[in-house]
Formats: sequence, C-alpha cells, structure tokens
Amino acid sequence: MANNNETVVMVKEEEKLEEEEEEASIEKGFEGKSVPTWQKQITVRAIIVSFMLSVLFTFIVMKLNLTTGIIPSLNVSAGLLGFFFVKTWTKVLEKSGLLNQPFTRQENTVIQTCVVAASGIAFSGGFGSYLFAMSPTVAKQSGAASVMMDVKIPGLGWMIAFLFVVSFLGIFSVVPLRKIMIVDFRLTYPSGTATATLINSFHTTEGAKLAKKQVQALGKFFSFSFLWGFFQWFFTSGDSCGFSSFPTFGLEAYQRKFFFDFSATYVGVGMICPYIINISLLIGGILSWGVMWPLIEDKKGDWYPSDLKQSSLHGLQGYKVFIAIAMILGDGLYNFVKVLGRTLYSLYNQFKHSSVAPSQDLSLTLSFDDKRRTEMFLKDQIPSWFAISGYVIIAIISTVTIPYIFHQLKWYHILCIYVFGPALAFCNAYGCGLTDWSLASTYGKLAIFIICAWAGAANGGVIAGLAACGVMMNIVSTASDLMQDFKTGYMTLASPKSMFVSQVIGTAMGCVISPCVFWLFYHAFGTLGQPGSEYPAPYALVYRNIAILGVDGVSALPKNCLVLCCVFFAGAMIINLVRDLAGEKYAKFIPVPMAMAIPFYIGSYFAIDMCVGSLILFVWQKVDRAKADAFGSAVASGLICGDGIWSLPSSFLALGGVKPPICMKFLSRAANVKVDAFLGS
Amino acid sequence: MANNNETVVMVKEEEKLEEEEEEASIEKGFEGKSVPTWQKQITVRAIIVSFMLSVLFTFIVMKLNLTTGIIPSLNVSAGLLGFFFVKTWTKVLEKSGLLNQPFTRQENTVIQTCVVAASGIAFSGGFGSYLFAMSPTVAKQSGAASVMMDVKIPGLGWMIAFLFVVSFLGIFSVVPLRKIMIVDFRLTYPSGTATATLINSFHTTEGAKLAKKQVQALGKFFSFSFLWGFFQWFFTSGDSCGFSSFPTFGLEAYQRKFFFDFSATYVGVGMICPYIINISLLIGGILSWGVMWPLIEDKKGDWYPSDLKQSSLHGLQGYKVFIAIAMILGDGLYNFVKVLGRTLYSLYNQFKHSSVAPSQDLSLTLSFDDKRRTEMFLKDQIPSWFAISGYVIIAIISTVTIPYIFHQLKWYHILCIYVFGPALAFCNAYGCGLTDWSLASTYGKLAIFIICAWAGAANGGVIAGLAACGVMMNIVSTASDLMQDFKTGYMTLASPKSMFVSQVIGTAMGCVISPCVFWLFYHAFGTLGQPGSEYPAPYALVYRNIAILGVDGVSALPKNCLVLCCVFFAGAMIINLVRDLAGEKYAKFIPVPMAMAIPFYIGSYFAIDMCVGSLILFVWQKVDRAKADAFGSAVASGLICGDGIWSLPSSFLALGGVKPPICMKFLSRAANVKVDAFLGS
Repeated sequence: MANNNETVVMVKEEEKLEEEEEEASIEKGFEGKSVPTWQKQITVRAIIVSFMLSVLFTFIVMKLNLTTGIIPSLNVSAGLLGFFFVKTWTKVLEKSGLLNQPFTRQENTVIQTCVVAASGIAFSGGFGSYLFAMSPTVAKQSGAASVMMDVKIPGLGWMIAFLFVVSFLGIFSVVPLRKIMIVDFRLTYPSGTATATLINSFHTTEGAKLAKKQVQALGKFFSFSFLWGFFQWFFTSGDSCGFSSFPTFGLEAYQRKFFFDFSATYVGVGMICPYIINISLLIGGILSWGVMWPLIEDKKGDWYPSDLKQSSLHGLQGYKVFIAIAMILGDGLYNFVKVLGRTLYSLYNQFKHSSVAPSQDLSLTLSFDDKRRTEMFLKDQIPSWFAISGYVIIAIISTVTIPYIFHQLKWYHILCIYVFGPALAFCNAYGCGLTDWSLASTYGKLAIFIICAWAGAANGGVIAGLAACGVMMNIVSTASDLMQDFKTGYMTLASPKSMFVSQVIGTAMGCVISPCVFWLFYHAFGTLGQPGSEYPAPYALVYRNIAILGVDGVSALPKNCLVLCCVFFAGAMIINLVRDLAGEKYAKFIPVPMAMAIPFYIGSYFAIDMCVGSLILFVWQKVDRAKADAFGSAVASGLICGDGIWSLPSSFLALGGVKPPICMKFLSRAANVKVDAFLGS
Repeated sequence: MANNNETVVMVKEEEKLEEEEEEASIEKGFEGKSVPTWQKQITVRAIIVSFMLSVLFTFIVMKLNLTTGIIPSLNVSAGLLGFFFVKTWTKVLEKSGLLNQPFTRQENTVIQTCVVAASGIAFSGGFGSYLFAMSPTVAKQSGAASVMMDVKIPGLGWMIAFLFVVSFLGIFSVVPLRKIMIVDFRLTYPSGTATATLINSFHTTEGAKLAKKQVQALGKFFSFSFLWGFFQWFFTSGDSCGFSSFPTFGLEAYQRKFFFDFSATYVGVGMICPYIINISLLIGGILSWGVMWPLIEDKKGDWYPSDLKQSSLHGLQGYKVFIAIAMILGDGLYNFVKVLGRTLYSLYNQFKHSSVAPSQDLSLTLSFDDKRRTEMFLKDQIPSWFAISGYVIIAIISTVTIPYIFHQLKWYHILCIYVFGPALAFCNAYGCGLTDWSLASTYGKLAIFIICAWAGAANGGVIAGLAACGVMMNIVSTASDLMQDFKTGYMTLASPKSMFVSQVIGTAMGCVISPCVFWLFYHAFGTLGQPGSEYPAPYALVYRNIAILGVDGVSALPKNCLVLCCVFFAGAMIINLVRDLAGEKYAKFIPVPMAMAIPFYIGSYFAIDMCVGSLILFVWQKVDRAKADAFGSAVASGLICGDGIWSLPSSFLALGGVKPPICMKFLSRAANVKVDAFLGS
C-alpha cells in the first residue's frame, strides 16, 4: 500500500539488478570517507569555479542557440571540468601546504549543479527562440504585417528582470517533487546517473578493487565513445550527413525516422533505462510513424491543405505535436493526481493514526547503496511549507511584475500558467526520468498556442504567447534539469540543501550572465537573426510563426486533431489505470504511455538506439550475469559521458568556425546516378 | 644450415604461437579418425558434385567478368557448398542404408580443389580480359586503326584447344614448389588456411571440447562477417559508394588510397599473417603512395605528358605497375635462385655424404599438429622427375600448337615464357603465401608489354601480346590458386596425390566448361562488350590498350621509369641479402620487399585492414594470451569465410540484376554544398 504499482514495477526492476549487485556496492568503497555538512559542501572555490564555467558554457550555448539552435546536454562536461579545475586548485594548495579542506564528490556535484542551472538559463531564456522572436528583425521575416504591439525590442534591463522573476519558480516547484521522483518512483534519469557514476569514479578510494575495475570499464568506454564522437564529426559537413543520418533500415524507413543513428549516448541511456521503457518507446514509434502518420498523410488535401510546408502546425506536424502533448499530459496528470491523492490520504492517516511514514517499509528491501543514499537524501530535508510558500510568493511577485514588462500579457494569463505549472513540471520531470528526454520546448509551444488564442490577435496575442512560452519553459525546463542534478546528488550523497542553495546561486548567476552574453552578441554582430548570416537564429522564426498561427485559436488546428488529442489523452489515462489494476505480474508487460508519446513527435531513431542498448545488456546478462550487473552501468555511463564531453570540443570547433571536411551522404540509386552525372560534368 | 633465415623468422613466429597452443591441437581431435588412402579420397560423388559446382561457379565468374570485371575469391564457397552437397547426399544414403564410405574432410578438400581449379579457368582464361580483347568488337572501341592481323574472332574450338595446351602447365610447375612453400617456408596462405579451418570445423568430432569452442567462435564470427557483408551491400549502389570507399583518414588520404575499407576478409587475413608482413605492406604503401607517387606526379609534363588518362601506362600508372613488378621480381628471383642453389647444394651433399634430409631436424621443434600434417603431406610424394618431365612435355606440345592458333605468336616467344614461367610462378605463389594477393593479372600485363614490344606492331604484336598474356596468366594464376589449395590440403591431411589428380580433373573440366559458358553469353547477348550495355566487359578494352601501347616497346615507358625499375629490382635483392646476413635477431625487423611492393600498385587500404587485424590480435594477446592463441585463427577464419560466402549470394543478386538501393557517398564540404543545391533545385 506504500506505493503505486508503477513504482513497484520499477523498484522490482532495479531491485533485481541490485540484489545481485550486492557485491558491487559503490558506497562501500566510500565507507571510510565522511560526508561534509551541507554548508561545507558549498565552498568559495566551488562558487568561483562555477562562475567561470558558467560564463564559458553560456557562451557556448548562446552561440549554438544563434547558429544551429541545437544544444547538447552539458551535464557531464560540467561535472568533469568542475573536477579538473578544483582538483588542480587543491593539488596546488596541497603542495603549498595551504589546503584546509579536501575536495569531495559532494562539492563536485555542487559545482556541476550550479553550472547546469546557470547555463540552462541560456537555453530556457529563449535567446534563440521565444525572446528573440519578439524582436523587429524576426518580425519582419515572418511576413505577416507586424504592428508595434507585436514586437518588443531586446533590452538588457527588461531581460534580466524577466528572467529573475520567472527562473526561480522552477526550483521551488522541483523541491517537493524531489522525493517522489528519486526515492519513491526511483526513476532512472540516465544523464544524472551517468554524471554521478563519473563523479564517483573520480573520487573513488584506491582500496576498492571492484570499484577500480568499474572505473577502468568506465574509462575504456568513455574513451571509445569520445573517439567515436570525434570520428563521426569528420563526416557531418552539411545537413543529413554522417552517421546520425544513417539509413540503417533503408531510405523508406529513414524517411519515417526509423534508423539506428550510432549515438553512443542513447545506446548508453538504453542500457540504464528499464526494458519496458525502451519497448514502449519502440511501440510508440511504430504506432505513430509506422501507422498513424502515414494514414493521416493519406488524408492530405482533405483533413488539411496539401500546399503547406512540412513544418507547418496546420498540417501533419500539428497532429504530431498536439497528439504527443495530449498523451504526455494524460499520463502526467494521471500520475500527478494519483501522487497528490496518496499524499493527502497518507497525511490524513498520519493525523488520524500517526502511522509510520510509507517510505520506511520499502527500505528493508533496498541494497546497501540505496539505503545509504536514501538516508543521506532524506537527512537534510527542505520543508514542504518552505517550498510551497516560496513558490507562491515568487508567483505573486512575477504575476504583478510581468505585465509591466509585457503589457500584452495579462495577470490572469500568468496566474493560469502558475496554477498548471507544477503539474506540467511534474510531467516533464517524470518523462525525463523515464527516458532522458526533456520536452520543455514542446510545453513552451503549447503555452504559445493556448495563450495566443486566449489573448487574441487584436490584443497583441503574439507577444503574449511568446512571453507565456518563456514563463512555461522556465518552469518545466528547470524541473527536468534540476531533477537530473538531484539524481546526481542522490548518488553522490550530496545534501539536498546544498544542492538547493547551489541551484539558487547558479540560477541567479544565469539570470545575469545570459542576457549580458546575448547583449554582447546582439551588439557585436549587427546581422543577428538575418537568414543566411553567420547567426541566423533559426528557431526564433519558428517560434514566431507558431505564435502567428496560435492567435487564430483552436480553429487553426487541422481537422480531427482535437478529437485525436482527446482520444490519446484518455487513452494514456486508461493504460495507466490498467497498469495499476493489472497487478505486478502483468503490469510490467504493459507499455508506459509517457514513453510511447515521445517518439510521436521526435521519431524512433533514439528509441532504436536505446533498444540496441537494451539488447546489448540483455545478451550480456545471458552470457555473464554477474559481470553485466557489476559493469553494466559503468559501461553505460562511459558511453553517455564520452559523447557528452565530446560536445565540448565540438562546440569549440563550431565556435571557431571549423567545419567538418567530409559529408557522408546517403542517396537513393536513382539520385546517385543523377549526382554522379552532375559531378562528372 | 637446414634452411634460410627468412624461413627461420617465420617458423619462429609460428612456433611461438604454437608452443602455447599445444593444448589447442586440432589434429588431436581427429586422432581417432583414419585418413583414407589417396585413391579413396577421390570418389565418384566428389567428382559429380565438383562438376555441378564448377558449372555454377563458372557462370558466376563469367557474368562478373563481363559486367564489373571484379572477381571475388570463391575458395571458401567451394569448400562450404561441397560440404553441404555431399553431406546431404551421405545423409540420404545413410538413412537408406546404402552408404559404404563415410564423408571425410579429405574428400571435402578434394572437391574444393577441383572446383577452384575449374572455376579459376573462367578467370585466367581471360574471357573478360585478354581473350575477349582480341575480338573485333573491342578492337573497334580502342580507336587505333585495326587491321585483320590485330583481331581474332572468338571461336569455341580454338578457345578450348588453347586452354587445354596452356592450363596444365600451371599444375606441373606448382608441384615441385609445394614442399618448399608449405613445409620449408611455412607460408601462411591466409585464404587456404581459413578454408581448411572451416572444413576441419565441419568434420570435427563431438568429443573434442576445445575444438567445439573453436567451432563456436568460428561460427560466431562467420555469421558476423556474413551479415556485415550483407549490410554493406545495401549501401553500394554505384561506384565509390559504401563502406569499401570510406575515407577513414580524410579525403586527401583516400585519394592516396589510405583508408580503412571495413573488409572483414582482410582484417582476418591480417590476423593470420605475421606482423612483419603487415608492417611491410604498410611501409610499402607509405613509401609509394605517400612519398614516391606524389614526387613523380610533380614531374607531370616533364617526365610524362600531362594530358594522359589516369589509367594510361604512359603516365603515373606506368611507374606504379612497372616499379611494383620490378620489386616483386627482384624478391622472387632472389628467393628462387637461393632455393635452387640450396637444393642443388644439398643434392650434391646427399650424393657425396648421403646426409639426412634437411627438413627432418626442423620437425623436432614442431607442434603435434604440424608434425602430423607434415608427415601426411610428405607421404604421398609426387616425384620431381614426373613433374619436370610433365612440364617439359606439355611445354613442347603447346609451343608447337599455339602458333597454329595465333599465327602472330612465334614459337620462340612461347619458349621464352616457358623458360621464365616457373620463376614467375614461384614469385606469385610466394607473394600470395605471404599476403594472400595473387598478382596474376599484373604478370599478364608484363607479358603483354614484353611480347608486344618484341613482336612489333608490324607483325601483329597486339594479338601476340594478348596471347602471351594468356599463357603467362594461366601459369602464375594456377600457381597461386593451387598453392592455396595445397595449404588447405596440408591442414586437412589430404594427400598431395589426390589433390594433384583432383586439380587435373578440375582443370580439364574448366577448359571445357568455361569456353562453353562464354560461348553461351556471346551468342545470347549480341551487345557483349559494348560500353553502356549490360555486359560491357570493361577490362577487355584495358588489356587491348595495354597491348597497343606495348607494341611501341620500352620507348613507350615514361621517363626514368626503367631506371627506377632497376633501382627497385636491385633494392629488393639487397634487402633480402641484408635480411639473410643480419641474423635471426634483427631479420625480423627488416621488411619483406615482396610485401612492400604489392601496395605500390594496389594502394594501402588492404594493408590498413590487415594492420587492424594485427592490432586486434596484438591487443588480444596482451589481454589474454592463452585465449588469443587458442581462438585467434578460428576468429580470423570466421571473418574470412563469412565474407567469402557472402560473395555467393551477392553474385546471385548481381546475376539477377538486383542492385543495392542506397549509395553511401563521401563528398567534400564544397562538393556537398553544390550537390545539395543541385538536388534541391
């Protein structure tokens, strides 16, 4: 009764692994080392290093925002660089005899969290998307006649103010979810897990023999994955070049996004995620790209006009985005309501019978590692009243302030977002915990669509929608990013309090650094946002176009889209209900709707990577169960981290304007004949 | 004193491996099984199956001859299909109680040998090269004014007659080399070794535990290699598409033929060949494509005209071909003379002191497997007087006959080829044993060049040269093919006598089957040899053009080419002399000129594959020496055989006109931008 079925399935999955992993305890290797108090985890040197790294990463993210719009995950890089900076620092101090506090893995996690929080703002701040979409430069390109009401000239002052009033909400909404996601649901958060494994491996004691072997395995696959990323880079000059566009199952399947894209990251992620998640992703991909989208495409000209661009939300793309969102919301809300209900019920019970806390009977079946981690994680509790009152106070401040910044956005729009915000934050953090995908921009697009329609074209709905997107994205993006960090903190015994403080510091840094860096770009390059220029900021136009569509309201949705959304929303709830009622034995064979929905929009390629990861682990377990259990997560983390670190040099190459020399292109036989003739002439 | 240094190095290499492989004896697994007498190894069923497979393979080779001109090695397929046919046959007979002789691995080897001999003729018969180059169809395309003297219309009668008088020479020239190559030099012959490992694995007894594990390893890598070949196929529509054109080290390096072409065959070959061979190949590749050819290319316009086609022997291609030949001849002749000298010396000693045969003191240091194999291999000796007198008789017959078929070719041309033939056959068989490459067509081109120049344009030098090419190719190609088979026979304890008889039968079959199959193609498809048609026979024109150049004689060679050839010819001899004088300790660090010369002409890509194979074996031996020694050759054989068998279905796909659907193309960034613009418009 302590927990719901969903959780039980996952706990089972993990337990099974961990029961046999008993020998492979990581925390036993750290037994001699004491964990510093939470105040001691946040050191001055950590903050200085965090600040330096934040500036560096903000530059990287900002540049990518404005060039390709594709931002890699920098969690791992933050952890690694944090380690090397502080390690060098402590080594120097140690030699000079001035070191008064050794470098701990908790401190390392604090740095990583702070940097992720700060550089996350460079993305969620929308400098390449919603915020820049308001500028006159982008407005001109969107074609539709723009009036003064539909533009907002970028200004350093209002940008910093806006970020300060919206960015902290995410942190406070995350805090109460923390225990549910990490301890109760025991979600995997593959990136967070991988970062933690990496940090643990840096700080592992010499004595632990198995740990040393695990570190070796991690190192080996880390190098492999890094070199693989490096190798791949050479073949990616231009779009749809390189291994990430490899039509592994033929060109027809590639068109439908069924291909193995040789991503070491997602193979690693697949090794960490439970089998049923990977299978759910694949089922979702087949259902959508294999069955539904082709069927809907046949209705082209009937259900939606046939002369639309591929990316238009009026057409097929609309079905993809909105059906995916509907299904995710259905699953997320079901679980949100369930958790809320159970929490209220157990609070009611506690008042009435003052019974034991439900999480404690679980701990009997936990491994040594998990017992120790859960204990540390629950020690420095941040009281719920603090989180909730913090959320409410900031929400009130921002509800009052934002209309002064964007007079097109009314206080009731903002209030409405803040009421639904935590539920959506829950959805995103939950989905991210299951599959490692954050769909923050998808939720942002939902907000644009709804608020644009609500405000209406006459009342400056475009700006209202874009601003609403900012409010929404800051909540949901922070929720998933910081939950990854909490998972890292959980696995490195970092105190939730120090994590929280570090997140607040990081966010505050980000709110200042990001607008300043953007300001620099904006004034240094006059052509910012011009198509064909060095900094085209491609997504700014996309966001503005969504807003322009949005002002027409629900009528702008293609035919039957709303009906399908309702069906999938209800379907997600029903599948969850069936999972809950089916009992442990069968529930683990029922797919998870949240996981099924993600490929609806993105495609199945990453699902295939993850299934490959699953398959590798499965075969490995068949061949040598003990070894697979002991080294599986180290190998997976190595794969994820190596690819993650490669994003750093690859970003530098992009910043330096170094482009890959070769394009590995895939052409159909007919196209190849044409191209050969063309190149020959 | 028993042997030369070169041999000692190789023996050492093998010994080291085999000392620790003691446990891993294959022959111990066969100890219970008696080896049938040589007469019993050649059964009626074997001949029937051989005939069927020969017809099948001749069709495949002929079609490939006439379409792309690229012929895969079919050794492995022959062994495998032979096994399945006879196994089914014996299974059926066993059930009906009529089986009076069990199926042995020796019988299997006999079939394989027979099929290789027969289908080899489809290649060395020159139906896609020198023979068809004589036809009026090709003569018309070559542009140069053709007179009646320079063409020969294909005719079934003269083709069969020609093949009969030239094809058996190869067999007789091989027989005396047999012991030197296999037992004394202990050359690897990777394809032959792999085929033997496969055949042994089919016939292995149930009891042998290690053998079973080896069979499993072979099976695993066999499947992998086969599936890899299958997967690669999909991406190879068109020229320079697919993994075999992967510019692993960049486009610049690819232009210079430095790339890893993902060929499982050559990775496996690299695992079988000694390290020094792979290193020599790489050094040769760097020396030629990295240093010499670029230097010579700089002299374009000075040393040779700058307006030549890439494939013209007047230009850079001439340097490549002739310098490679010079170096190979230098090494080959050095060893030939050395072997001859030692043989005469030991014969002289035997007469004088009747001392023991030199090979016997070696056998003390041999492993169980090698002792048993050597014993069986030397049991059924074919006397040298038989081989030599056979060679002389056939040479006389063919010297008399051939001028009747090609009146342009004089008896002294033929006699000259037959005098040098055995030396060149030795070179080719020796090189093939070291590196698995048969350079028969290169020797053929040499013959064209020399005889064309000798006969002169006025006396129908073109036809004379092409016919001489046929005589030469039949000798050298047979020498390397059959030596591979002898290696297979050595490792499967097949009697040399049964192998010899089977080769004779196979060759006789081939001399009839191949012309008939060609005749069928020639009459069924009127457009045979027309460029752009279904059967363009691309190499026929190449051979004819070489002949047309050849009639101009040595003056046709580009500037300084002859000088360079002499330098490299002498260099090869000097390096060999240094190797011999340096002593065991240092000799193994001195590269082998024969191996160095092969990439001169072909490029380094296969050398890189082989070095990758070496590297894998090296790392494996470092990690787990015992396992690497026990399973290394099984894994290598699996890789070679899987890819080899894939050539069968891929040939069938080509025969059926099924083309791969996708081209994986590699474009420079600039070219890609152009292509994208072209495809977009």
